[in-house]
Amino acid sequence: MLYTSESLEILIDELTKFPGIGRKTAQRLALYILKQPKEEVEKLVRAIIDVKEKIKYCSICYNITESDPCPICSSPKRDKTTICVVEEPMDVLAIEKTSEYNGLYHVLGGVLNPLEGIGPEDLKVKELIHRISSGGVNEVIIALNPSVEGETTSIYIANLIKPFGVKVTRIARGLPIGTALEYADTATIVRAIENRTPM
Amino acid sequence: MLYTSESLEILIDELTKFPGIGRKTAQRLALYILKQPKEEVEKLVRAIIDVKEKIKYCSICYNITESDPCPICSSPKRDKTTICVVEEPMDVLAIEKTSEYNGLYHVLGGVLNPLEGIGPEDLKVKELIHRISSGGVNEVIIALNPSVEGETTSIYIANLIKPFGVKVTRIARGLPIGTALEYADTATIVRAIENRTPM
Repeated sequence: MLYTSESLEILIDELTKFPGIGRKTAQRLALYILKQPKEEVEKLVRAIIDVKEKIKYCSICYNITESDPCPICSSPKRDKTTICVVEEPMDVLAIEKTSEYNGLYHVLGGVLNPLEGIGPEDLKVKELIHRISSGGVNEVIIALNPSVEGETTSIYIANLIKPFGVKVTRIARGLPIGTALEYADTATIVRAIENRTPM
Repeated sequence: MLYTSESLEILIDELTKFPGIGRKTAQRLALYILKQPKEEVEKLVRAIIDVKEKIKYCSICYNITESDPCPICSSPKRDKTTICVVEEPMDVLAIEKTSEYNGLYHVLGGVLNPLEGIGPEDLKVKELIHRISSGGVNEVIIALNPSVEGETTSIYIANLIKPFGVKVTRIARGLPIGTALEYADTATIVRAIENRTPM
């Protein structure tokens, strides 16, 4: 293009690859980088490189970590008899923020999705079964997202775990706190009624 | 924080500094970077560094450029008697995309904003007057954004230019193409009526 610079175009192209970042946003971000003082940009570049160099996956739970095993797996304060199965590292973060869960995690790295060609061998399913078969686990809490793929994967995993005689539960589906019943979707209301609890 | 890595937190903090990027989006972008293959991340880092190292500001129009003067200012095909005044480099891009304008530009670098302490000396106003006083300019088209600050800055600049006997115009305000009248805001409708054109 005549009217802009090649290096700016390349940066915009790179930023457009990010999830949820369209061309307009990428342009805005690229120009923001351009306007920043050199030291600020160097801090950003350093942070990106550090993340790639320092972060590994925990060899027990497959959460992201700078030390292996991760702080959660190696903490003497955590309840090692309970494993919570989640899709992604962000889910561990979300649950840890509640400060209500004191067990361990297992990060699958996604859910089964035949359309996108993601099968059990692409997820850390084998590794989960290995942890359970090694003993010491009393309960596995499945906390996958309430999507069709999440549901399918939950059932698949539950069936794999049950033969080991371990209790398998999954987090409740129902009305989110603060939502009006009239705005909830049908599937959520159906689940909320099914999972009603005694008062 | 116990449950996440320090380098990831630093990267999320850096990404949160971007305009329009909240904490949740920054987390998503940071984890995307983490998941990318090393070569992809290296391309991103290279693009960021290149933009900062290669891009300068044109010493005539203050648009961003890799060569000085910029391709527009140095093109023999452009009409050097007309200058279009815009706020930011993105505005040059937006106008160039129309392929309808063949004159030169002048990028102010912002608009007057007393509340944020931005005065004429923070913008390329002096440089614009210098270009006009050097002669050869027949028309200055003011194309600042239709905000209160944009309007104020337009009037301020018009008053500075008029003594040089140069024609000063500004881009029309009116109904955007494709909009229904009933959805347009009052100020736009008022301007559309004021600026009505004979048929």
